[in-house]
Amino acid sequence: MIIIADNLRITNRIIEKALAESDPVPVRKLAEACKHAGADYIDINPGPLKNDPFPKMTFLVETTRSACDLPVLIDTVNPAAIEAGLIASQGEAIINGFSLEPLKLETILPLAKKYNAPIIGYLLRPDGHMPASADERMMIAVELFNAFEQTGLHPDNFIVDPIISPLLWQDGLHRNRELLTVIRNLPDLLGFPVKTIAGLSNLTADSPPGVNRESVENSFLAMMAASGLDLVLMNVLNSAAVETANSCHMLISADVFAWPMINPVL
Amino acid sequence: MIIIADNLRITNRIIEKALAESDPVPVRKLAEACKHAGADYIDINPGPLKNDPFPKMTFLVETTRSACDLPVLIDTVNPAAIEAGLIASQGEAIINGFSLEPLKLETILPLAKKYNAPIIGYLLRPDGHMPASADERMMIAVELFNAFEQTGLHPDNFIVDPIISPLLWQDGLHRNRELLTVIRNLPDLLGFPVKTIAGLSNLTADSPPGVNRESVENSFLAMMAASGLDLVLMNVLNSAAVETANSCHMLISADVFAWPMINPVL
Repeated sequence: MIIIADNLRITNRIIEKALAESDPVPVRKLAEACKHAGADYIDINPGPLKNDPFPKMTFLVETTRSACDLPVLIDTVNPAAIEAGLIASQGEAIINGFSLEPLKLETILPLAKKYNAPIIGYLLRPDGHMPASADERMMIAVELFNAFEQTGLHPDNFIVDPIISPLLWQDGLHRNRELLTVIRNLPDLLGFPVKTIAGLSNLTADSPPGVNRESVENSFLAMMAASGLDLVLMNVLNSAAVETANSCHMLISADVFAWPMINPVL
Repeated sequence: MIIIADNLRITNRIIEKALAESDPVPVRKLAEACKHAGADYIDINPGPLKNDPFPKMTFLVETTRSACDLPVLIDTVNPAAIEAGLIASQGEAIINGFSLEPLKLETILPLAKKYNAPIIGYLLRPDGHMPASADERMMIAVELFNAFEQTGLHPDNFIVDPIISPLLWQDGLHRNRELLTVIRNLPDLLGFPVKTIAGLSNLTADSPPGVNRESVENSFLAMMAASGLDLVLMNVLNSAAVETANSCHMLISADVFAWPMINPVL
């Protein structure tokens, strides 16, 4: 399982301020901390960047990449910012992402083709809303893949985000149970081992105090791993979450000699 | 998910001593602690009890039941001790358990019939060894169920333990991956929603220091829960494990209003 840090985001006040002031130090420190904590990729989420998308995304990607040699996810709805990120990352980026929303199909998906970049497709309706059932998610996955295929890119570059629902939503629990089946069945549906990604923090978003978010998130992460999830976007500064992802990788994805390899004494 | 404490076992020196001296105090204290920690059942594992099986098992079951009103699992290979436990528990016990070993089929399985008790069947070969593949486990499950059916008991009383392998075993990782599929497929194979149980501590048995046993066990527990595991036998005095089991129950087994119910403020 590939671990993607979701920490470098505009909702982090330190990053918001650093971006406003073009101060590389906090960005660099956070990127280094994420790598040290076990991140394989860093998701860069600066919001829509209505003003100065090109220099701002360039600043974030170049600063992150100079601080650690990890590849990045360009996580914004702004096509100009995505293009800046793709240029600055020099081929080491995933676009995060597109959906069936017409504007995204027209302005974001072509950037994957232009820069030969992997791209994440969200299982959302063309109006941006969540599908109502697992069947609808599967239909959307087919439509998304059809749109992706028209770019001519190799299917390896197509990554599906089935979108975790907050458990707080009235039907959140039901949707997330279905999501486990969706992750499991997508490769059969699309006819190749399509990669899947999920943003873990969505699960317990807006949860009230007193809920054991960590236990719920880690348990659901393991369930998604057993269903075949390939990439997880999460707070890598939570060491228990990283340990869970690593345990899941060993239990499900690694070669069968992984366990003794954890401790070379064996 | 039903949580079964595996703490009351002869390998616990305090319990070994209490049993030798017929001292109820340590047994009572441990039973109370297990209930307080979240156990739904208490597994009573006194070893084979070669000497005085009847009074010793009676002592353990009566002491446990007087300390907490939880049902118990009678976990021994000694039929005389099992019968004592069944009598002492007054219908609030599960036999743990039988297998295709001829002696167990002849001496333990009939006790389920005689006392109308649920019984756990292990997916082991007639010689007591582990099956080599998922297919062989499934064949053994069918044979076990056929033997169980001859008792005339209702299928609800049949519980399967597919047996977790220690990850330390050369093929432990592969076997445990297959076990997730076995748990998932057993209800279809047997044609009814057969319940399954797993003993979690087996997973990291004899693991070297430096291995994060808790993270690996909790992750695998969540994976088994997603496959449909109904009962887990574990150290309930490890609060993180109990929290994981509760999170798994909410995520997979509970009704869809379970999440808001965690916090009545909602």
